[in-house]
Amino acid sequence: MASSDQHQSPETTNLQLVLVHRYPRFGNSFLSKLQTRYRVFDPVDESDPSLLPLSGSVRVMLCLGPTPVTSETLDKYPNLECIVGTSAGYDHFDLAECRRRGIRITGAGDSFSEDAADLAVGLLIDVLRRVSAADRFVRAGSWPVKGIFPLGSKVGGKRVGIVGLGSIGSRIGKRLEAFGCSIAYTSKRMKPNVSFPFHSNIHDLAINSDVLILCCALTNETHHIVGKEVLTALGKEGIVINVGRGALIDEEELVQFLKRGEIGGAGLDVYENEPHVPKELFGLDNVVLSPHAAVVTPESFNALEELFTYNLEAFFSNKPLRAQIECE
Amino acid sequence: MASSDQHQSPETTNLQLVLVHRYPRFGNSFLSKLQTRYRVFDPVDESDPSLLPLSGSVRVMLCLGPTPVTSETLDKYPNLECIVGTSAGYDHFDLAECRRRGIRITGAGDSFSEDAADLAVGLLIDVLRRVSAADRFVRAGSWPVKGIFPLGSKVGGKRVGIVGLGSIGSRIGKRLEAFGCSIAYTSKRMKPNVSFPFHSNIHDLAINSDVLILCCALTNETHHIVGKEVLTALGKEGIVINVGRGALIDEEELVQFLKRGEIGGAGLDVYENEPHVPKELFGLDNVVLSPHAAVVTPESFNALEELFTYNLEAFFSNKPLRAQIECE
Repeated sequence: MASSDQHQSPETTNLQLVLVHRYPRFGNSFLSKLQTRYRVFDPVDESDPSLLPLSGSVRVMLCLGPTPVTSETLDKYPNLECIVGTSAGYDHFDLAECRRRGIRITGAGDSFSEDAADLAVGLLIDVLRRVSAADRFVRAGSWPVKGIFPLGSKVGGKRVGIVGLGSIGSRIGKRLEAFGCSIAYTSKRMKPNVSFPFHSNIHDLAINSDVLILCCALTNETHHIVGKEVLTALGKEGIVINVGRGALIDEEELVQFLKRGEIGGAGLDVYENEPHVPKELFGLDNVVLSPHAAVVTPESFNALEELFTYNLEAFFSNKPLRAQIECE
Repeated sequence: MASSDQHQSPETTNLQLVLVHRYPRFGNSFLSKLQTRYRVFDPVDESDPSLLPLSGSVRVMLCLGPTPVTSETLDKYPNLECIVGTSAGYDHFDLAECRRRGIRITGAGDSFSEDAADLAVGLLIDVLRRVSAADRFVRAGSWPVKGIFPLGSKVGGKRVGIVGLGSIGSRIGKRLEAFGCSIAYTSKRMKPNVSFPFHSNIHDLAINSDVLILCCALTNETHHIVGKEVLTALGKEGIVINVGRGALIDEEELVQFLKRGEIGGAGLDVYENEPHVPKELFGLDNVVLSPHAAVVTPESFNALEELFTYNLEAFFSNKPLRAQIECE
């Protein structure tokens, strides 16, 4: 049916405005589809300067990946009401400032939880059973020369302490129970309906664990939650797995513990100063190093796209948002 | 109490005779303990030639690792009644010849099943989520240079076909269910009390699977059970995991499929000509190579030692043996 308002194209009149906030390398694959449904204001793409005056009227931001949203960012968009995020963590948001301005935020919800849990378990098996080290050994042609590869350690029977029993941590627990590990956890609060033993602090958890798996949010309280004391409590055979955020661990301290053999091993997907990984780790056989890849499979990206598409629509039609983050 | 038979030492009179059959590199750690309980006849160790005349009287053999027991081996020990084995596989025994001579054989039973299942799952996560490849990427210093590492594929939702649902295969199924995989299997016979769908042959299983995991025994029937047809049925995105025996796969064919990108990836712990691994695999990022290390953790060796110690005692006291192999 022809519109009676012929002098404006439907592309600009009928479509709602969405601000896309991103690093240039993120999100190109999402944008073209988004542009079929919304008028996309993408400051990274400077090809359409006519959109710039829209800063004052934009009400919703799609924040791709962990692109920082600071108080200065928010100053540019004074009428922002909602940030639709796409990240499992939310340490890139200035939560206090968002709360002050009454801005609602959503995250990736469960979209990435299975991937992150899978990688955490993969890193743990890899460290215990020395899979990556074995692969290096074979590729270097060492098997026919050196013979038997050193023993690994059994997965079953390990006491695994999960730090942060949210949607990722609980999935890690479920998986590792099937391997015969015994699970305990620490978390802000004891969880109802969870049978795993709870420890009120990470130090107690570390003393009672062979393995610590970090999958909690990075906040002021959890910054460097694993340092000298916790590593000492975990002990010489202890293993640390980190699929949370790099700064949960005092990385310098961890490197020293690993170099001195005062801890058994580590499986790391995240680092304090990404993409830089401490070079001292490159020569160690008891660490497995992954480039912040816990949450990148095509299947999860599809789930994520579904979630943020839903949230954008929900925002414009005043329906409840999914996977909303508490700005506490 | 002093023995009345003073001219013989208790070490040689009171202890039962056990033949140890092994490659020189195997089993040194077990031998000293064994010597406290038995008179050990160890042809590899030629320091005591006085034992050689015992070949005719030895009734039980402790066979360490996959040391071959052929008809020629058996000819040397005409009064052998029982072989206490220590291996998860039994393709190194001439089963027909043992049956003909009425020799009973025991294996490793479940001692190694959890380790093998753990490694199978570890290899699968590693191939799907590219863990070893990611570790290489980070150690090579590529992350800051190349940026984002290519996407992996999600574990959950994969259709996993298990070839051989014995003590290893059933443990693999249990673990992968916790990841949200759907499991099916093929086996000599359909298993009672198993809810996983059964396929009567590996070709049907491959057509209906994203992943094939080989954990069956190597026999005449299973030799090269995975060749051109099965790999074609599995398809371009398909993944093969082998923790059974190298010759379950036509290795040359697999290498060609991998090189031509006609299969998605492979996680291999065993090879046709160990310790030699096809060099064409060393340059591929979609394979993970482990040096026949599925069953080596100290915990499993302890369980194994307990089992064969029990079986030696049971043999001499006419009690039922554990983990007996059917020589069919």
